Formats: sequence, structure tokens, C-alpha cells
Amino acid sequence: MSDDNPDVWLEQRITRIAGPEDERLAPYRNVRERDLVGREGRFIAEGKVVLNVLLANRSFAIESLLIIENRLAGLKDQIRLCPADVPIYCVSRTTIDAIAGFPMHRGILAVGRRMNPLSVQALIDTLSPTALVVVLCGISNHDNMGSIFRNAAAFEADCVIMDETSCDPLYRKAIRVSVGATLKVPFAQQGPIEAIIETLQDAGFTLFGLSPSGLTSINSVQPAQRTALLLGTEGEGLPPALLQQLQTARIPMSSDFDSLNVATASGIALSRLSRFASL
Amino acid sequence: MSDDNPDVWLEQRITRIAGPEDERLAPYRNVRERDLVGREGRFIAEGKVVLNVLLANRSFAIESLLIIENRLAGLKDQIRLCPADVPIYCVSRTTIDAIAGFPMHRGILAVGRRMNPLSVQALIDTLSPTALVVVLCGISNHDNMGSIFRNAAAFEADCVIMDETSCDPLYRKAIRVSVGATLKVPFAQQGPIEAIIETLQDAGFTLFGLSPSGLTSINSVQPAQRTALLLGTEGEGLPPALLQQLQTARIPMSSDFDSLNVATASGIALSRLSRFASL
Repeated sequence: MSDDNPDVWLEQRITRIAGPEDERLAPYRNVRERDLVGREGRFIAEGKVVLNVLLANRSFAIESLLIIENRLAGLKDQIRLCPADVPIYCVSRTTIDAIAGFPMHRGILAVGRRMNPLSVQALIDTLSPTALVVVLCGISNHDNMGSIFRNAAAFEADCVIMDETSCDPLYRKAIRVSVGATLKVPFAQQGPIEAIIETLQDAGFTLFGLSPSGLTSINSVQPAQRTALLLGTEGEGLPPALLQQLQTARIPMSSDFDSLNVATASGIALSRLSRFASL
Repeated sequence: MSDDNPDVWLEQRITRIAGPEDERLAPYRNVRERDLVGREGRFIAEGKVVLNVLLANRSFAIESLLIIENRLAGLKDQIRLCPADVPIYCVSRTTIDAIAGFPMHRGILAVGRRMNPLSVQALIDTLSPTALVVVLCGISNHDNMGSIFRNAAAFEADCVIMDETSCDPLYRKAIRVSVGATLKVPFAQQGPIEAIIETLQDAGFTLFGLSPSGLTSINSVQPAQRTALLLGTEGEGLPPALLQQLQTARIPMSSDFDSLNVATASGIALSRLSRFASL
């Protein structure tokens, strides 16, 4: 698939930029630090796999692409799929590293924007009578957030709902760790966990709080037609007051060791609660 | 448990060091970079939880401890457990950050050393007639290595065996991610994967290679009395030639998405193969 002479259409479609000072590259400057400040619904997606997910999902707009020159030939399909009014900038490795503020191994960056986020209620209204939902309370680590979304996609959870204290799944690192799942699995983030639980109960969901002290083994839980799996922060877990109101489940494991990482726990629980448990 | 005036015994046990230039602190200098070069069986352990695991396991020696002064009072139990000939250095936050080369949030570092590592055969010889072993082929990411050990500890796998192309579980980050499990679960690393498999088969182990293309669903696998779970690199998975010789298992999941992270996959498979599967 090597192609040292890019096609004419490709050369006409892209915009070559010579150095890192060009103002059109401003959205890509110091992406690592900028991610920590207000992003107005925008996010940075990295790599070909994530770009494919982004291109496939109409809930997101692409504002521009930045591609290192030696990756161009391998990205013709993606470039063809990109709407004609989206600028595609092409630069040298030196320039992309200078802009990004660190060595960019993947050579592809996109600025995306989430359009019309749904409220928790509106998202639940889109679900089928049979549904599996992941609910997150206070997940503050972007690696865990990304991994949980990856697991939600692998086991075909219908959506993820997060409380206001959870971190942003569209943070660059969360997107990367999720292999694009945060751009694939529908999600809503809104308000306190108690309000989310009430909304789910009103919609006929049976909720299971996952906790090392949970009453039922996850191996014995019978999923309902509409099931929600609740996960809390790794340090504190779900608030005790919440656990008292809900059915609770535990993953049987050694009493001799620190509990599982919350992302791994989500994978194990989803493998038991999803339709794949019986396959 | 606050204690602004450390006991006399504590003050006599520790060695206060005023600045970062002191030669006794040399093993702790730039731990982040040094980890990448030869370490002669030594490793850096961080934090109280990991220190507890290190103190409990006679397979490891502690060469010295470095503690930030405001953590002293909370570490009396650990200091009491530390052999009398192990130096315990105490420094200010400014000094520890200057030595480590980055802000040390945990305030506790230990230099440990692994004593008399076992060969694969010798490690297998220590196992009971009923055993669950994790075998790793080409796991090169320290986060994955640490997470797999954490899962092995959670589901009480008896040991981990790694081929020569896998990374070092005593790398600082692997120890940290494992929450000390790489200092708890016995392991051996030696030679090519083919030799490891042969040794396990000779010892009566039934081996299951985990792969998205595996023949049997992990939900249907019947563990043998001696079971070994084989995991390959995330990118390539286990070599096809190897999979052809072995029983293979898959985790049923969406065909529509990139496969699970290898660490998450290890957790799901171990939850099915361990004695906890029936609890």
C-alpha cells in the first residue's frame, strides 16, 4: 500500500503548512496542557482507529484534521469520508511535534466537537425495552473512564450515564484509552447520582450497585430486562447511603488483597450482565 | 493518630539527611529514568501499601527506605517491621522531589532486591496438585503487566510465568499499578514461550490460549486440576502457530469493536477459571 506520489485529488484536498507558527494550527497547540482547561465541547482525537469512530458517528462534528505527511497515503479512505468543508492540514514530523508539545507517535490529530448533548432523561428515552446501562459515580481518573467505555462497547452496553463529579470522557487521554469508545457509546453527564438513580428507576430499570461488600455474587445475579450497573470511585466505592437503597453485587475474589481496579471490575460485571454471558 | 513529636526510638532508628546531594541517596536519584537501564535485580517500590507487601515477602530484601518527614508518624508499624540493618533515610519534601526528579505524592520510596529468582521448572515444582497459573507471552506494556498481576492476586492464581520477550514486572510503574502484586504473586521469567509450554505440559497442566478467535467460550471452559491461562500481546495476540497446538478460549463480546484490553481480558478469564467462579 506504499504510495510515494500522492494522487492529485489528495494533494488538492489537503492544505500543506510549513511551520508550527501558522495560526490555523492554533487548536492543536500544546494539546496535553490545554486539555485541562475549558474546551467548549471540543476535543482532540488521536490515531487512525479513533478517527474511524469519529467519522462514523453523526453526533460529533469534525472541525479539522492534522496529519503528518508520511501518513497521508495510508489515510486516503478516511480523507475521502471527511466532509468537504473540513480543513485537512498536512505537516512534517518536526512541525507536529513542536505544535503538540510532545512526540506524536500516531501522526493523526483531529479536532472534534460534540453536538447537542442529550440530558439523562432524553438519553434514557432513546433506549429499547431491553437495555443495559452503565452508571458512574465519581470516576475521576481518565484511564479508568476510557477503559470502562471500552468495556461498555465490547459488551454492547446501550449507554453510559455519569454524575456531575465524574471526569470528562472526551478528555484526550480518555478517548485514546477507550480506543474511541467514548465517541461510540452514547453518554449523558448530569447532576447528582441520586437524581440519576431516580430517573432510571422511573424508567423501569433494576439497579445493581457493584461493591466488594455487595450482597449477591455477580455470578448469581439475574439481569432484568432493563438493568443498570452502578460503579463508584476506586478509593471510596459507592456511597454507603446509596448501597443501602439498592440491590448490591460483588465480584467474588481473594479477601487477602486490595480489590480489583474499577475498570477491570466493570469488564467482569458486564461480561456477566450482558447478553454475551450466555454465549 | 497524629503525632507531632516522634518517639525517641523513632528518631534513633532513622537517619535524617539535609539535602539532595548526599551520596547515600544515590539509589533514589532520577528513579523515573534510571528504571530504564540495568538495575541488577534491584527495584523501587512506592507507597505504604506496596511497602507492606514488600515487608511481608521474604523473597525480597529491602536495601533502604526513603521517607518524607511528614509521613514518619504514620509509618511507625512499617519502621518497626524493617530489619535493624536497613537504613531509613528521612528528608524534606523539597529534597525528595529534587532526588526523584518529579513530585513524589506518596512520600515513601524503598530500594528492594529480588533474591534467588526461581527457574520456571523450580517454580512449577513448588505448586500443589491443584493449581492455576498465568502465562504471558510478549507483554511489553508495564501498565498491562502490573494490572495482570493485580488480577492474578485478586483471583489467587498460584504464579505467573513470563517468556523472555515480556517486560519486567519489577519495573517501578508495574509494581505501582499492581498495588504490590508483583511483589506478592510468585513469578519466573525465562526463555521462549514454547519451552514454557512444554514444561507446563510435562507437569500435567492443561493450557488454554486466550484469543478473540478461541474455539471455546470462556463461559464454557471446564478448568482442569492444573490449569494454565496463556495471554499474548495486545496488538498481535498469541502466535497462530501456538494457538494451533493448544486448546483455545475466547471471551464472547461484540464483533463490532476492538477487542478488550489484555489486562481486562485476564481479569474476566481468571474470574471464570479460578475457584471464585463458583462462589
